[in-house]
Amino acid sequence: MFVVVVTAYVKEERVKDFVEAVLDNARNTRDEPGNLRFDVLREEGESTRFMLYEAYRTKEDFAAHQQTAHYLRWKTAVADWMAEPRTSVKAQSVFFGNGE
Amino acid sequence: MFVVVVTAYVKEERVKDFVEAVLDNARNTRDEPGNLRFDVLREEGESTRFMLYEAYRTKEDFAAHQQTAHYLRWKTAVADWMAEPRTSVKAQSVFFGNGE
Repeated sequence: MFVVVVTAYVKEERVKDFVEAVLDNARNTRDEPGNLRFDVLREEGESTRFMLYEAYRTKEDFAAHQQTAHYLRWKTAVADWMAEPRTSVKAQSVFFGNGE
Repeated sequence: MFVVVVTAYVKEERVKDFVEAVLDNARNTRDEPGNLRFDVLREEGESTRFMLYEAYRTKEDFAAHQQTAHYLRWKTAVADWMAEPRTSVKAQSVFFGNGE
């Protein structure tokens, strides 16, 4: 599986908006046939730091995700809400623990 | 859900041993009643950097995991195989995308 882990520091006054936008993206992404996970996480003790944990069957499925209306809507919406540029790590799974 | 994301840089000559040890830990952890995910990832373009993505129903389930024989076996085994100290981020889920 192809996994992307995104880290986002959000401006404090935009956290509520960010959560709303990311839930729209996450729910729609879970309906993509190539998507296997889209967990949205909020760091303990760092309430403006979020992680998105996204897993796709293949790298091509992730590329297709980046062309969807819900991804583009999310990307545009959150652009001005970041406290600093988002970072991401891309990885391949060695073990994908629930058999999907 | 309570999530722990561990990042481990492994000594190049110990990567094979590390993978074997982490698979033993991952498979056994998936059998814990409080565990929901244990994905093992290898970063693209950085073949000695691994991430463990572990999700538990509660923080107490993670504490229980840290008392298991398979966790302690893993922790002891890998201690000398790290190229630098492991880091981890702890988080709570805002959205846990497959309904578990």
